[in-house]
Amino acid sequence: MSQIAVEKTYDTLAMINGDFKGKDIVSFDQFSADDVRRIFALAGHMKQLVLGKEPCQLLAGQLVSLLFFEPSSRTFGSFAAAVKRLGGQTLEIQNPETVSSVNKGETFEDTIRVFEAYSDAIVLRHPRPGAALRAAESAEFVPVLNAGDGNNEHPSQTVLDLYTLYERFGRLDNLTGVMAGDALNSRTIHSLMRGLSLFENNTVYLLSPEKLRLKREDLNMFRSRNITIHEITSERDIPRDCQYWYWTRIQKERFGSLTEYNEMVAQRFTVTPALLAEYASQEMILMDPLPRIGTIDTEVDKDHRAVYLRSQVRNGLYTRMALLALVLGRA
Amino acid sequence: MSQIAVEKTYDTLAMINGDFKGKDIVSFDQFSADDVRRIFALAGHMKQLVLGKEPCQLLAGQLVSLLFFEPSSRTFGSFAAAVKRLGGQTLEIQNPETVSSVNKGETFEDTIRVFEAYSDAIVLRHPRPGAALRAAESAEFVPVLNAGDGNNEHPSQTVLDLYTLYERFGRLDNLTGVMAGDALNSRTIHSLMRGLSLFENNTVYLLSPEKLRLKREDLNMFRSRNITIHEITSERDIPRDCQYWYWTRIQKERFGSLTEYNEMVAQRFTVTPALLAEYASQEMILMDPLPRIGTIDTEVDKDHRAVYLRSQVRNGLYTRMALLALVLGRA
Amino acid sequence: MSQIAVEKTYDTLAMINGDFKGKDIVSFDQFSADDVRRIFALAGHMKQLVLGKEPCQLLAGQLVSLLFFEPSSRTFGSFAAAVKRLGGQTLEIQNPETVSSVNKGETFEDTIRVFEAYSDAIVLRHPRPGAALRAAESAEFVPVLNAGDGNNEHPSQTVLDLYTLYERFGRLDNLTGVMAGDALNSRTIHSLMRGLSLFENNTVYLLSPEKLRLKREDLNMFRSRNITIHEITSERDIPRDCQYWYWTRIQKERFGSLTEYNEMVAQRFTVTPALLAEYASQEMILMDPLPRIGTIDTEVDKDHRAVYLRSQVRNGLYTRMALLALVLGRA
Repeated sequence: MSQIAVEKTYDTLAMINGDFKGKDIVSFDQFSADDVRRIFALAGHMKQLVLGKEPCQLLAGQLVSLLFFEPSSRTFGSFAAAVKRLGGQTLEIQNPETVSSVNKGETFEDTIRVFEAYSDAIVLRHPRPGAALRAAESAEFVPVLNAGDGNNEHPSQTVLDLYTLYERFGRLDNLTGVMAGDALNSRTIHSLMRGLSLFENNTVYLLSPEKLRLKREDLNMFRSRNITIHEITSERDIPRDCQYWYWTRIQKERFGSLTEYNEMVAQRFTVTPALLAEYASQEMILMDPLPRIGTIDTEVDKDHRAVYLRSQVRNGLYTRMALLALVLGRA
Repeated sequence: MSQIAVEKTYDTLAMINGDFKGKDIVSFDQFSADDVRRIFALAGHMKQLVLGKEPCQLLAGQLVSLLFFEPSSRTFGSFAAAVKRLGGQTLEIQNPETVSSVNKGETFEDTIRVFEAYSDAIVLRHPRPGAALRAAESAEFVPVLNAGDGNNEHPSQTVLDLYTLYERFGRLDNLTGVMAGDALNSRTIHSLMRGLSLFENNTVYLLSPEKLRLKREDLNMFRSRNITIHEITSERDIPRDCQYWYWTRIQKERFGSLTEYNEMVAQRFTVTPALLAEYASQEMILMDPLPRIGTIDTEVDKDHRAVYLRSQVRNGLYTRMALLALVLGRA
Repeated sequence: MSQIAVEKTYDTLAMINGDFKGKDIVSFDQFSADDVRRIFALAGHMKQLVLGKEPCQLLAGQLVSLLFFEPSSRTFGSFAAAVKRLGGQTLEIQNPETVSSVNKGETFEDTIRVFEAYSDAIVLRHPRPGAALRAAESAEFVPVLNAGDGNNEHPSQTVLDLYTLYERFGRLDNLTGVMAGDALNSRTIHSLMRGLSLFENNTVYLLSPEKLRLKREDLNMFRSRNITIHEITSERDIPRDCQYWYWTRIQKERFGSLTEYNEMVAQRFTVTPALLAEYASQEMILMDPLPRIGTIDTEVDKDHRAVYLRSQVRNGLYTRMALLALVLGRA
């Protein structure tokens, strides 16, 4: 007996296999290529719905808890907007200090179980890797959506990145791109490669400082998963026919010391109009999961290929609307 | 002239006497047994409404300010969900630092009067005992609901505790239970006994360390109010036929020194599967106002008698929905 | 291509000239006298709508971002209530620390562009003068409303002050009033004089300590803009036939040292029942933009002429409802 709109129907971390209703979304690995296509089809509808400017009541009467144990204004805003654009309502805990019961010593599991009693789904952001899985296991009745758990997973980010490629090129196979930044540690780069590995014949040029190359075991894993990887350490090695550039920042929190971080930052790559002019085709798109910090010169913003502050951000809204509708059984 | 949905109709702290509309809810003592039954009848409807999963518009167009001058994620979430499940909207001030006018030196009374101008009711959480009464006296037009003012009152907590007993046993008289914890200081224990004192023939076993026994004046007061009290200091004295166990934590803020607190914590009682097996009947329920900190072993969670993270939390939602609908004249 | 309800149609800071739809509201100087009258007419409707207690769906399906980079509970509550009273929804970032991307080093411009992707309008509060203009220039698609940018502008405050005068006297010309406080630095005093300068034949008595008189250039500017100004330094010089008193606090942040501030505070003027009895007519109104700190004795609150916690606060709601409806093309 539960007050929720849709009851959880399965083992946490089970594959979606076409049936999203009532399932936790903890890891991108729960999706098959068909699942991704299903999300994309619905995201396309969501986009039309938002552009059509008609109020939507798909989630009318639905209440979604947004539990953000660390601040993340973009992801928070995107999920909150997704719920509200669909006519649903949110329970918002944005600030870890206001999760008072936690301050009083309550366990994370209890907090999750309290909020599942109030709402139809929980969107969780947490600094600790594995927190989303723990939340999903704690919630008895309502689905949990991982909105980023530390350096572990952020499946809706991967979905929106893939959707941005799909929307532009009409496919997710036979694409060649550059991913630049901290190939060793970057969650977004690793996740996007895992996403692409569901599809055929993708080639990635990994551009990073020598010291931030992918671990050999990760390199082998991705190669075994269908991705052709070329490691490069200079912009001069970017092939001119890439369909996309995916630029990411070097994150301070990944390094043991500030010295080490500063050394890496000194070697980072920044997209400028000149770099685009020399190495990029007219048909490519330039992506960034944001925030861009040292990644892309603002001079580039007006370029028609710069989608990071345009369709990429908006696609986060559309794909999250799709995910919520699917999980809540309202697609 | 006011923009509100329902105007305050009476003197603050007056008895409800069957007429909730437009009244402040500052203290549980405003309720008669019939008032409590009225809330319960409506809470039952609210439960059906939520379980029925149909969007509800009972509070459509109503705006409820949630002014939380101290964090309390559970109570905040419960009231916010109650408003939204009824189709209403909230003005949320969750963080005392964002009550900027207060920081600038504005009086509490002025803040209340500003927010009553924006909304149809105010739900107030405040660390200072008596704050709810001051707010109720300051608000000229809209009802104020006390969501906890320090160690003073938290009437909706008492209502949900009583409702949990009522829902399970179909009555609030002729019940025997244990209340464990800090009998001297615990607001929830005192309030629940006051609630039960509205009904006939209730017996409470107060389990606490010797030093945390009820004050003699409180003991006499409760006895004069119809409650049979037995003070016990060991689990061995729990009778096997109790209908409920109500376990509460020992709160650090009630003690002058950490030494004193630690001494009491060392003597506290914790529910374990073994304790339940030995002293509890199969028909009883195990309650906790939460957060549970040292009160109940997580091993107990799956026991069918453990209602603290199940019906007790949910009943908070249903009873607050009922209270809001009654006070706003939409029952 | 945008998902928004109404697209921006013009150059930032352009005059409104009767056409609010899709325009940024950065400065009060964008309004003509006719624009102000248009807002007032609609604010009157909004008041009836709120008093009529019927749910309104004028902004149904509309999502308004409230980006508050500094806390301001009154302005936040007023804008949030305005959106929700019209049936719209909000994206709320109340606490600067939760604008995490900013903490991570994201530029203000990027943050604005991210939130415009999620919503149909942005209401911005920011401590830095000029921030609203920067936001308006950054937002490509949705209108930005300035809810206060430091000591620079707070146009909706000016509108509500003017509306309070208009509602009481049926006109904005031929009014005589006192404005008391820090004439040198006060944003609200300067803005209200600019507002009145759109209309004919207004006279203002500026009551301030000698050291806080208006700058000579500002004095000349206001005189050239149609306002008759008398500078006075004692309550004894208040004429008995003023239609309004507009009292403002002396703000600490305007002074270089605490000594200087304390010296000025020692010379400030406070409204008491005695002062009203001696110098105020029965027909005048007493206004304060709030918070009142040292400006008005609480003894005065019950006086029928004291509108600061009554119609003045409520008029903030009605005029902001009007502004939002106009800018979003739903008037």
